[in-house]
Parts: sequence; structure tokens; C-alpha cells
Amino acid sequence: MKITELTDKTETIVRFSEVDAMGIVWHGNFVKYMEDGRESFGRTYGLGYYDLYEQGLLVPLVKMDISYKLQVKYGERILIETTWVNCDAAKILFRYRICRATDNALLVSATTTQVFLNLQGELELTNPQFFLEWKKRNRIETR
Amino acid sequence: MKITELTDKTETIVRFSEVDAMGIVWHGNFVKYMEDGRESFGRTYGLGYYDLYEQGLLVPLVKMDISYKLQVKYGERILIETTWVNCDAAKILFRYRICRATDNALLVSATTTQVFLNLQGELELTNPQFFLEWKKRNRIETR
Amino acid sequence: MKITELTDKTETIVRFSEVDAMGIVWHGNFVKYMEDGRESFGRTYGLGYYDLYEQGLLVPLVKMDISYKLQVKYGERILIETTWVNCDAAKILFRYRICRATDNALLVSATTTQVFLNLQGELELTNPQFFLEWKKRNRIETR
Amino acid sequence: MKITELTDKTETIVRFSEVDAMGIVWHGNFVKYMEDGRESFGRTYGLGYYDLYEQGLLVPLVKMDISYKLQVKYGERILIETTWVNCDAAKILFRYRICRATDNALLVSATTTQVFLNLQGELELTNPQFFLEWKKRNRIETR
Repeated sequence: MKITELTDKTETIVRFSEVDAMGIVWHGNFVKYMEDGRESFGRTYGLGYYDLYEQGLLVPLVKMDISYKLQVKYGERILIETTWVNCDAAKILFRYRICRATDNALLVSATTTQVFLNLQGELELTNPQFFLEWKKRNRIETR
Repeated sequence: MKITELTDKTETIVRFSEVDAMGIVWHGNFVKYMEDGRESFGRTYGLGYYDLYEQGLLVPLVKMDISYKLQVKYGERILIETTWVNCDAAKILFRYRICRATDNALLVSATTTQVFLNLQGELELTNPQFFLEWKKRNRIETR
Repeated sequence: MKITELTDKTETIVRFSEVDAMGIVWHGNFVKYMEDGRESFGRTYGLGYYDLYEQGLLVPLVKMDISYKLQVKYGERILIETTWVNCDAAKILFRYRICRATDNALLVSATTTQVFLNLQGELELTNPQFFLEWKKRNRIETR
Repeated sequence: MKITELTDKTETIVRFSEVDAMGIVWHGNFVKYMEDGRESFGRTYGLGYYDLYEQGLLVPLVKMDISYKLQVKYGERILIETTWVNCDAAKILFRYRICRATDNALLVSATTTQVFLNLQGELELTNPQFFLEWKKRNRIETR
């Protein structure tokens, strides 16, 4: 059976500098946690910014949707679950679930879309060879 | 004629600390620019965090969608256009257009949704009196 | 023999959002790493912001000195060594050494000074009882 | 009479994302205000990061000392006074006074030291020609 998703999990603690005047994480800091998730995913599966850069590829975000469910305070441990989702287009899609570590309560769910640019900043309209091979190595379903 | 939207414009310069290793604004920093926009809107129209807090209201974000169109570099001036959009539900909706100041090229479009909590952290299911009066003062169409 | 210093060590990875246009950590982010160090120290030795807050104490920084020795890039692992240094005055002194994990090269050395405020924001001129007992528990030399 | 110092003043408003759980500016954010001050100075006097970069020069910080005097809250206006101080060594020295705009109360005083690197990352041991000419243009006392 072919795989259509890959998931990585990582954990962090809410820093004092990340909470706002209400003592809860400022909403913009979840964007950092999501990048922590992508970076951890990249280290686990060999799809980090450096792995891509070495192949002449940049992968800027073009879309980000975040839903905030529950608030979280300074000092609490959080789990970041980052799921890469296969698609045929020349894009990288991730889905995120950020949960409180103590009771697994969902704090934030989110998605991001990234595209491929070459080092001249031009959009790659088809999937780069490196990415197709990466999919293959990870037994991802491709057409 | 009744009004259904209110717009504020503000301007800022990209800080050195806001760009990434590519020399362009790190995507997460647009969340700050959007908050700059909301804060400027709040000062212009009397709907700032303090105005609301004095009424016993907190207005956390529950949803944020961002589309990235063009990249912007250190030192460039950007315009943040923040539009409050009327809705009947007990929510605050904003739409954002962030443009490069020199040629008005669109960098980012975005929307956010905020809800009302009282100071005990409970969700306000109907529009707070203060907000209804704020709409009235601003000649906003209400049912 | 009485103790005059206590040290905690923690480790982190340089995030993409923490580097600047040169691909190296933006100098201001070392202030975060130092707070990471203090927070880790606080968890290890029971001197966290919450431990103090529960005793009616705030501990704002009044002084911070940082010397930058070497630059560090995205993705590199760093070690944060945080040493609490005893003094008779009603102050909390920390010394920091932040090193590259691979070869222990010194990146940053720094010191901070914190004072005690009560929850009314008034300066505590003498050492709070809680802090004296904390020193005693940790076998710290006191007059 | 020759000049030994040059001063620039700029103003900003404390952002919601810059305050901590106590509702006051998180100490690390003053490092951003100091950079805002340097950038404003650079625009005023032609000594910005880009001006230097075009001359093949990078100017990393090697030392930063900050003294915190008073706290400042969300929404308050602050003044950043940035003074370049002449010295004979191949260094850039700045002194900062950050004040509350309403009553000019001193919040933070600070100093920074920067050195010159060429684009290969090598330290420039003598003052670059560009910097000597910049001093001359600004009627700075030099030996």
C-alpha cells in the first residue's frame, strides 16, 4: 500500500517571551511553532530548508490558514504534530495540530502551502526531480 | 446610505530584524504588520484593545488566513490597509491588504476573525452593547 | 564547603526565524537564548518566574551585558550554560556562556542583574525570605 | 569647532506583541528599539546597513550593554535617541536613551559597539576609507 501522508511530532515549552499581556501565547507565535514543526519534519525526513537549498530550491509559503481553539499559558508543554500531505501539483502541503501536552487538548489546527522557486526566484511549475525522488524514497503514491 | 465597511491605512518600514536569510520579510512577521494595522484602526476608530478592555471585553483571534503574493526586502516601505467588515454575528472581521509603498504592488492579502470574551474568559454569544453602540456611532448598517 | 555558584545547561537548535539576512543569528535573539537558559535554570533549581510569583515576587532585569564572539548559523545546535552567582545584595545575578554544540566554541558571554519587586511594583531592598531559604536549601554561602 | 557626536531621534508606539505577561515591554524588545534607532540614524546620516554593504562592509555588534530604569506599557509612545560617538579605533559606537514620550522619563540607557567585516567575514583592523570619508563629510574630529 502506498502512503499519502507523513507525520512528525515534536515538543516545546511556552517561553515567557511568547506570551502576551493576558499571560497566554500571542497568536503570532503559533507561526513559529508551525515552523518548528516543519523544521523537525525536515530533519526527520530529509526535507529541510538546507536539503532543498542544496538542490537549488527555495520553498516560500504562499498560503497559511490557522484556527485557534484554546489558549495556552507560559510554561506549559505543547506538542506539534506536522503532517505532510501528498498532492500532484508542484507544492508542499502541511497540516498541523498543536496540542497541550498534559491532556492532548487541541490548541490550534492549521495548514500551509509552499511552492518551489529556483535560486533565481522563478516559480517551478512542475515538481522538481529531487522532490519526486524524495516521494519515491518515502513510498509516496504518485501518478 | 448605511456603511458596511471601515478602512484605516498606516505605513511602516521593514526592519532588519524582520527579514530572513534570503533578505526578505519572514512570513510570520506579516502577522505583526496585521496587528499594526488593527492597532492603527483601533486608534482611528476607537476600537483598540484598551477601549474594549475597559468595557470588560477581550477579543482573541479565532481564525487567520494569509495569502502571500510578493516578497519584500529590508528597508522597503509598506502600506497596511485594514478594513473592518460588518457582520451580524458577535464577531470582529478584518480584511488586510499589505502593499509595497513605492508601486502599490500587493504583497499579502489576509483576513482575521475575532470573538468577544468577558474578563472571566467566557464567550459572548451576542454582540456586546458597547460594540452595537460603536457600530451606530460609525453609521454601520445593523438589523 | 559552601557553594557560591550553581550552573544549569540546556540545548537548543537555531530556528530559521532567528537568523538575519546574513544567515546568522540576529544579535537580539541571544536575549531569548539567555531567557531559555534562566527558565531552564529555574525549572532545575526551583527558581522559575512562577515559583517567585507565587511568593509575591517579580524579578525584572535591570542590567544586561552581552559580548558577541562568534557567529552561528541556521540549524546549528547551541549549548546554553547559565550560572547563578551568589551576592549579598537583594539581587539575582546570572552569567551565561552560549557555545556551539559541535566544538564547544564560545559564541556569546553575558551577564544579567535582576531585582525583586513585590506585586505592587515596589523594590525589595533586602533579600526576600523565600530567596534566603532557597539559598539555604542549595547550600549557598550566606553571611 | 569639530564635532565628536551625532544624534538622531525617532519615535515609536509599543506594540501589543511587544509586552509580556505583566503588560510591560519584554526586556528583549528594547534591542529592537535600539536597532530602530540605528536604522533611523543610518537613514538620516547615510550610514545604513545598505550604505555599508554597498561598500563591501558588514558591521556586526560585538558588545551591548543595557540598563533598565523604568517600565513601559502597551500603547505608550516612546522616543529613541541614538548618538553616534566618535572613537579612533575601527569601531562604530552608539549610545542610546529611550524615553517615554509623554514626560521624557528615561526608560533605558544603552551602548553598542560594532566592528567592520569585509564580505569574506574578515575583521577590518583599520578604519575603512568609506568610514573616514563619512566622518569628514560630517565634520567629525579625526586625528
